[in-house]
Formats: sequence, structure tokens, C-alpha cells
Amino acid sequence: MPRGPGVIALLTDFGLRDPYVGLMKGALLSVNPAARIVDLTHDLAPQDVAGAARILASAWSYFPPGTIFVAVVDPGVGTARAALGVEAEGRLFLAPDNGLLGFLNAGRSVRLERRRWFRKPVSNTFHGRDVFAPVAGHLSKGVDLDRFGPRIRSILRLKTPPPAKPGTGRIVDIDRFGNLITDLPAAALAGRPRIRIRRRLIRGATTSYGCVRPGTLIALAGSTGHLEISVSQGDARRRLGARVGDPVTVRHDP
Amino acid sequence: MPRGPGVIALLTDFGLRDPYVGLMKGALLSVNPAARIVDLTHDLAPQDVAGAARILASAWSYFPPGTIFVAVVDPGVGTARAALGVEAEGRLFLAPDNGLLGFLNAGRSVRLERRRWFRKPVSNTFHGRDVFAPVAGHLSKGVDLDRFGPRIRSILRLKTPPPAKPGTGRIVDIDRFGNLITDLPAAALAGRPRIRIRRRLIRGATTSYGCVRPGTLIALAGSTGHLEISVSQGDARRRLGARVGDPVTVRHDP
Amino acid sequence: MPRGPGVIALLTDFGLRDPYVGLMKGALLSVNPAARIVDLTHDLAPQDVAGAARILASAWSYFPPGTIFVAVVDPGVGTARAALGVEAEGRLFLAPDNGLLGFLNAGRSVRLERRRWFRKPVSNTFHGRDVFAPVAGHLSKGVDLDRFGPRIRSILRLKTPPPAKPGTGRIVDIDRFGNLITDLPAAALAGRPRIRIRRRLIRGATTSYGCVRPGTLIALAGSTGHLEISVSQGDARRRLGARVGDPVTVRHDP
Repeated sequence: MPRGPGVIALLTDFGLRDPYVGLMKGALLSVNPAARIVDLTHDLAPQDVAGAARILASAWSYFPPGTIFVAVVDPGVGTARAALGVEAEGRLFLAPDNGLLGFLNAGRSVRLERRRWFRKPVSNTFHGRDVFAPVAGHLSKGVDLDRFGPRIRSILRLKTPPPAKPGTGRIVDIDRFGNLITDLPAAALAGRPRIRIRRRLIRGATTSYGCVRPGTLIALAGSTGHLEISVSQGDARRRLGARVGDPVTVRHDP
Repeated sequence: MPRGPGVIALLTDFGLRDPYVGLMKGALLSVNPAARIVDLTHDLAPQDVAGAARILASAWSYFPPGTIFVAVVDPGVGTARAALGVEAEGRLFLAPDNGLLGFLNAGRSVRLERRRWFRKPVSNTFHGRDVFAPVAGHLSKGVDLDRFGPRIRSILRLKTPPPAKPGTGRIVDIDRFGNLITDLPAAALAGRPRIRIRRRLIRGATTSYGCVRPGTLIALAGSTGHLEISVSQGDARRRLGARVGDPVTVRHDP
Repeated sequence: MPRGPGVIALLTDFGLRDPYVGLMKGALLSVNPAARIVDLTHDLAPQDVAGAARILASAWSYFPPGTIFVAVVDPGVGTARAALGVEAEGRLFLAPDNGLLGFLNAGRSVRLERRRWFRKPVSNTFHGRDVFAPVAGHLSKGVDLDRFGPRIRSILRLKTPPPAKPGTGRIVDIDRFGNLITDLPAAALAGRPRIRIRRRLIRGATTSYGCVRPGTLIALAGSTGHLEISVSQGDARRRLGARVGDPVTVRHDP
């Protein structure tokens, strides 16, 4: 992999109220003060590994090749779970081996275990600061991935629920605007779709929030390639009383 | 306009819970990994174009000449509304043409439409990531504004309410400390003012939060040059039960 | 002190909803566009000087030598309280003289008062933007601390409550995960401790969140070296109905 641009993207469930994210950045800058640190998000639901994987899977391609992603949602910190460094898609990914990186088409993968690259002492409760941030700093300075630990053959994958029937999905996230993000591919909107959600029927797809009358309930292709339910200039969550996990179905008129 | 310092300031209503701001930064760094990105705020009220304009109008002068502002509050994303690039005050401003930039004394202005500078494909729902961020990246690398699209003669201005009587204004924002920010210029506090708000009378102006007894209700010149109502070491919102939109009047004793 | 790496860490009670933090960054970049600004946290409780001091005291060592810390929790802004620049621990600290820096083993200390280094005009309500940020910018460009004002002999220290009996402490913070952070040193967990909190008894210490059954109430050494009460993969705040200020005691079995 070529030397990257020094961009390091952080993704955690630490929130921004506590100083944890700042401490990670301090530890990282202590190794490489020239690192270009950028926040993907820190408001993942606490300990929601699957949600973190979903966000990272939909986000990595928007960052430049060579970006180093540091993803810390780590309920097993301090236990025997491995810390991973994985090369994939021309980028580097650091995370606990708890399934967070399971979506990757992983190339060279190592178990981060050489303590010379860690902060000393390593706490049992905060590997974001003591392990992942310093390793990211050294990687961004050009240290080769193999120097951080031995290669491993496979990484943990999340057990995903059995694939639903075609056209049957769920709300997996609700954003700040009240848009309902589903796990159905946007391609499901081709043709003449009829979308059902919470006893409401939406006929046809719309191309953007603003091209219908304000207040209209619509289905459209969201920005990460999934089917999204929205209310133009409104809030679909409130309108429908929707929650993460609610089923969504798509049928097609002939 | 001289080549800027590479500072790009972001202002959106995306919030920080979702990955949208992170994705904009990724798209921007994909074009110019050396960009110095700084957040002005991302917690604007969703789709509040007027509020975004007010914040940006009071903030731009604190950033260095050559700064590129990217302001995305964009209920019309995906419709025919134009995307703007505007030179003003020695800085560059990118935003949808929905009134957000209407406060500017606009110089050279172009409609951003040459797709070679956009991310491909351009979604219908997220021009912050697909249009504005990449254009900001190219501008920060020195690409001239005219290369992004044709010049335009005028940009949309918000219809502002009829100017109130002198000395009559409203609360336009309430900050985290419970300070009530009005649309009255701080100059209204000259002389011997009597300020009325929610049936309370404040006599005279105070110069700072801390120069009166804790708990005192005061009027003072806020940091953006507007009249502000505060409670020293307290919370004026809670004390008065105040809300955005509440009227505030100033009269003067002879 | 050697020339630093240009890292400037910010710590305020401004929150991220309002544009105040963005304005500080703009003012700082106006002086030194190459500054590497990093947020420690901005969600300190409003006007909680003691809390700010506690966070900064536990955080500074994780940042590289030469880092400039700008800590603004400033209920006395605009009054006669001094603005401080303090050299300590190979780093520089800027803050109002209200006790926030009182924990430092202060070396060279100056009162920031030469207005040539400030933004003009200096407001009475926002010295973060008008005084501290520009001074940090100039310091990061190598201007010597003595040029900002006269040396002072002592800085304000917070009156701390009388030292509690050994083994008696309090909850001083509760983080996003519901972990209860106490002011007891982690060393209190040596031997065979019995920890009492809200009528619950915890026997023995645990080394990490993940090495016990999910849902177990545990005591462990937190990441800043203090005793912490947690629920594995759960929320100790909710479980115990705990609040900041609640007493915590540690006794030891022989």
C-alpha cells in the first residue's frame, strides 16, 4: 500500500461530552503531531458494534486512499479480544476484533500486540487512547503494518440475521432530520414500487426531498445507497411514530 | 482574490450524531488532503436558512481573509435551486441559492454546475458531500472560481420581516448559557436605557456578566454586537421562561 | 521551553450548539493559519471551574510536550480577573485566573495584558475569542511568553474541600456510559477492598469492563487513575440511581 496522505478518521461511541475523544487525539498527536485527524462520528450508540460497522461500511469510500480509520466500539476492552490492523480497499483499519471490521474484504491483517508501539502503561479500560491512537500515529509516519504484530488468517464477523425475503427490510437508523434509513438497497425502488411502513402505503419513488409538496411522505434513494423514508421539510420519525427495527416492505406493480 | 491559507469553515444543520459531517470532510480531503477544515457549527436548527444566515453573517469576519465557507442548510437539495460560489469580503462562500448568502455584499458570483469538479455520482439528497465539499477542495487548491460555472447577476435574498420600530426587537437565539440574543444593535444600550422583556424591566446596561451580583438580570452588549439579556452566573432563559421570538423593547430616559 | 509542535488544545464550557468554539478557532487561525487545533472537550458544565480543572489535570500529560492548552471557563469575563499564561510540565496553559490552573506546578507565569496581541476591539463578554485565542496563535508562532505581560508570583488556587478520611470519596463525574468516576485514587483498590456506594457493597476489584458477566456491578481502576464504579456492558448511573456528589467508601478486609 502506498504511503497515505496522513488522514486519520476516528469513529467511536465515546460521545463528545467526556474528554475521551480529546485524549485519543492527544495520544495520537504525541506520536505524530502532523497527523490530519478527522472525526467521522463519536455518537454511535454505546457498545453498538453492528451500528458502527454499518456506518463505517457506508463511509470509508468517501475518504482518500491511504486513510487510516480508527474505529473504537469496544465492550471487550481489557479482555483477550485481539486488536486488529487490517489493510483493505487501499486503506487501513484499526479496531477491536469484535466484528466491527467483519464487513471488509480484508487483505493483510495483523494482531496489534507489540507493546513498543503502545502508550505506557496500557490501561485495561481505554485502548482507544493507549493502543489504537498511538498505533495509528506510527502507521501515519510510515511504519509498516507487519511491525505491529503477527499476521492473522481471519477476523471476527458479526452474525447477521438471516437474509430477509427480497423486498422485506427494516429501519436500521433514524437521522437528525427524522429520515428513516432502511437496510433495503435503493435498487428496490426501480419500476413502480409500493412501500409499506407502519400501515402507511407510499406509491412510487421520489428523487429528492424538495421536489414534492412540503409535508409529503416519500420514499427515495438515500445518500448511502439505501431506501429511505422521509417527509419533505418534515420529520418522518415523528409523523409515523417510527422506530429502529420497524419492518419495511416493497412490492412492485406490474 | 489572493490565494487563501487553505482554511475551510463548515456550517451545517447536519448535527454531529450522524456521519454526514464526517462524510463531507472525507469528500473534501479526497480532493485536498492538506485542507485545514474547521467547524463553525453543525447544530443549526434543521432547515433554518435564516438562522444559518444570521450565524454566518456574525461570524465570517473572525476568520482569516481567503477562508472558504461551506454553508449547507439545504431543504431544496436535488431540485432546481442553484449551488452558489460567491466572492465577498475577501473570502469565498459556497451555499445553496436559498437566501443563506443573501446578507453578503456579493462580488463575483457563479452558479456551480460543471460536473467535472463534483464527486461522481452526484446524489439527489446530499450535495454537501457530492458538490460543495469537492468544490471547496478544488478552490482551496487554487482553481479559479470562474471555472466552476457561469457568472450570475444576483443571488436570492431572504424576505426579512418589515423593520421593526426603533427600539423594538426580538429574541433571535438563546445560547447554551441561557443568554437571550436579540436582533437589536448593542448601540441601543447607549444613554440611560430601560429594557422590557416578558414583563420585566431592566434599567441601564451592564458591561460584563461578572461585574454584578450573581443572579442579577442584566442587559449588555453581546459578543456579536447585539443587545443580550443575561443572568449573571445564571440562566436568563429559565429565569424569564423566555423563548425565541419574544419581543424586547428599549426606551431611553432623558 | 523548546518550540512546540504547533498543537493547540481547547477546553471550554461553550458547548457545540452555538458558534462560540468556531469563532475562537477563526480568531486563532487568523493569527496562525497553520495551527493544529484539537478539541479536548467543550461540554464542561457551564461555569464549572473545578470540573474544568479536574479534566485538564487528568488530560494534559497525554498531549505532546509544547502543546498550548486554552482553557476557557470564565464566569468573571470582563471583570478585573487576570488572564494567565503559565509554563508548566513542558507545556503552556492559558486560562482566566480563577483557579482553573491552580492544580499546576506552575513555572514562568505572566498576566496577559499587552493589548497588541489581542483582537481589536476586545469585547467584555468573550475573551476566548478576543484574548486567549489570538495569544495562543502568537505563542504557537514562537512569540515568547514574557512579551504578553508582566510576570506574576502566584496564581489563584481553588479552595478544595478538606481532605476526606482515607478511603472516603465522592463521585465527581459520570460519563456517557454511565460509569461513576470518583476522586479516590485507583490505589485504594489494592488488597481486598470492599466498596460501598448507595447501600450497595462491591467486594474486590475487577481489571476491565469485559472480564465479568454482563450486568455485573464492578469497581476498577479507571483510565485516569481513579476508582471507577461500572456495570459491565451496562450503565451504573441508572442501576444505582447515582449522582455526582454521592459518597463512596473503601474498606479493606485483612
